[in-house]
Amino acid sequence: MGRWGVARRDRALAIAGGRPLVTADPASVSWLTGLAVEIEWGPNPFAVPPVAILEPGGRVVAVVSADEAPGLAADVEALTYPGFAVEDVDRPGASLDLVLEALPDGALAVELASLPGTLVRALGSRELVDVDLRPARAIKDPDELEAIRAALRVADAGQAAARASFRAGATELELWTETRAAMEQAAGARVPVLADFVTGPRTAEVGGPPSERRVEPGDLLLVDLVPRVGAYWGDSCATVALGDPPEPAKRAHATALEALEAAKAAIRPGATGDEVDRAAREISGSYPHHTGHGLGLALHEEPRIIPGSQRVLEPGMVVALEPGAYGDGWGVRTEQVVLVTDSGHELLSGHDLRL
Amino acid sequence: MGRWGVARRDRALAIAGGRPLVTADPASVSWLTGLAVEIEWGPNPFAVPPVAILEPGGRVVAVVSADEAPGLAADVEALTYPGFAVEDVDRPGASLDLVLEALPDGALAVELASLPGTLVRALGSRELVDVDLRPARAIKDPDELEAIRAALRVADAGQAAARASFRAGATELELWTETRAAMEQAAGARVPVLADFVTGPRTAEVGGPPSERRVEPGDLLLVDLVPRVGAYWGDSCATVALGDPPEPAKRAHATALEALEAAKAAIRPGATGDEVDRAAREISGSYPHHTGHGLGLALHEEPRIIPGSQRVLEPGMVVALEPGAYGDGWGVRTEQVVLVTDSGHELLSGHDLRL
Repeated sequence: MGRWGVARRDRALAIAGGRPLVTADPASVSWLTGLAVEIEWGPNPFAVPPVAILEPGGRVVAVVSADEAPGLAADVEALTYPGFAVEDVDRPGASLDLVLEALPDGALAVELASLPGTLVRALGSRELVDVDLRPARAIKDPDELEAIRAALRVADAGQAAARASFRAGATELELWTETRAAMEQAAGARVPVLADFVTGPRTAEVGGPPSERRVEPGDLLLVDLVPRVGAYWGDSCATVALGDPPEPAKRAHATALEALEAAKAAIRPGATGDEVDRAAREISGSYPHHTGHGLGLALHEEPRIIPGSQRVLEPGMVVALEPGAYGDGWGVRTEQVVLVTDSGHELLSGHDLRL
Repeated sequence: MGRWGVARRDRALAIAGGRPLVTADPASVSWLTGLAVEIEWGPNPFAVPPVAILEPGGRVVAVVSADEAPGLAADVEALTYPGFAVEDVDRPGASLDLVLEALPDGALAVELASLPGTLVRALGSRELVDVDLRPARAIKDPDELEAIRAALRVADAGQAAARASFRAGATELELWTETRAAMEQAAGARVPVLADFVTGPRTAEVGGPPSERRVEPGDLLLVDLVPRVGAYWGDSCATVALGDPPEPAKRAHATALEALEAAKAAIRPGATGDEVDRAAREISGSYPHHTGHGLGLALHEEPRIIPGSQRVLEPGMVVALEPGAYGDGWGVRTEQVVLVTDSGHELLSGHDLRL
């Protein structure tokens, strides 16, 4: 673990311009420390959001609860306050004190919006240079790619289960249960999942959570599965037909697949987000969402694949591509995730895209 | 909806001491505005944490994404920035500008740790009085009690399903799938759930998520279910035996039930957290956690039922009570939620507590 995260810490230090860097952005903290904070049930009453400090020499200090410290990478120095405890503990105050003690003097590079107001007030008139680590996070290190591949395998398992479960008479929630179970079986653990899971006329709404609607013969299922395994997200979408779908949906699905192929073909180092977006929309026409986005420690991050984006693709970026089409009472979308390689792309998704 | 939230806004204004109150604490924002922010998949890439401003006259302003605005109570004024969008939007910047425009001049009462660092920096040397709304949140208004009752009915459905599913040969994750499905069926929607779901020797560890462990004859299942329905949490725990449990576990379970009854009997206006805690521990002896806690917009809040707590119970407080016992290779816990009434308590939980 000695060289864990060195490449990305170097990129972060370049952005910090030689200053110590302080962040409480959950994705940045994971990126610098390896910690995967629990998210599925909101704020933890026995912890405050972790704070990471990256010193100019490359040393990383994390202020976390004692319960979280075992999740840190081996070379991260943990400064801890009590986690779960019977007695009352002022955790916001204890965390603040630890951060203030650990901070070097002088100007700081910060992700300012992420820092608690108490810390910023305590820093008084200290010079704070607001920086954005998102562009640096877009390029994935090998350990991050491995984690994303694992999350995509879980998404693949969910897609296979959704397809297998799709049947008339069942409610969307019932299909959802079988789909999520397959993902948790594949992960061997509970996993947070963002999902669009809509059938029949609801597919025209682009997305939404599963409901009590019952599947009818001839329905479409639009299933977009975004599971988080460890700290990293997968993403995937398919549209499945039960029996004979509406003719315009059939044509739109074939076109969406073509648009997806065109977008993948446009993926290479040096291409802009705009160029990839245009490659898809030239085939499929308009849809009311992005063509794609990066993913990793956040489920939607740079590079965004949208009209006008001058963000330039680089090897090591991971991009989800998801052209779709939505008509009167129907909607289709297909999505795969690719890695930008030195010469083009590598397909990371493995799920079935057939209608 | 004209009188929605008036009682709690009055309590908040009393704490603010006549100053305008500003908070971005998710529970406080829900409390003042009715908004139930999505939590299950972490930070929303198309929104920043909502900010609520309570003016001394009782008017409430919420700075939210346009996607979130429909979730606000009818009398809350929404100031919105774009939510989901194809193009890039500087949402942190847009939210900050709206908050700064909406803020009255002069000193502010704030939940300082909850405010984004950008806002606190922009306020410069403005007088900020750090306040704590948690004690005020402990007393529930009628609409809040209704929401907690709904969440507890979902927890009850989960407890019944966990008990029915418990069988040798299945993995904890398989039982968990059936349990969660019952909760989502009862709610008619996906629900975030924090859970302890452990069997056999794992019950000695007090809690933990479901794993790939397979149930064996004679096992215990310790199942603690904490679902969030809308913005409010339920909570419940039972321990179930498959066949003949270890003799000490049987005795400990009977004692835990006695301790639970004693704790409930100690619940009345004027009692302290310490007194209720003592009533339980005098019967059951020691366990490595609290005897109980409030719940509502947070899953663990005031009043905490712990040794030494001088927090005084008042009518309208909602308290989860959960004595347990943990031995060599086994653990048991039983939990019910009660409402503090004018004369004692009303039981809100409806699940089966039998071993």
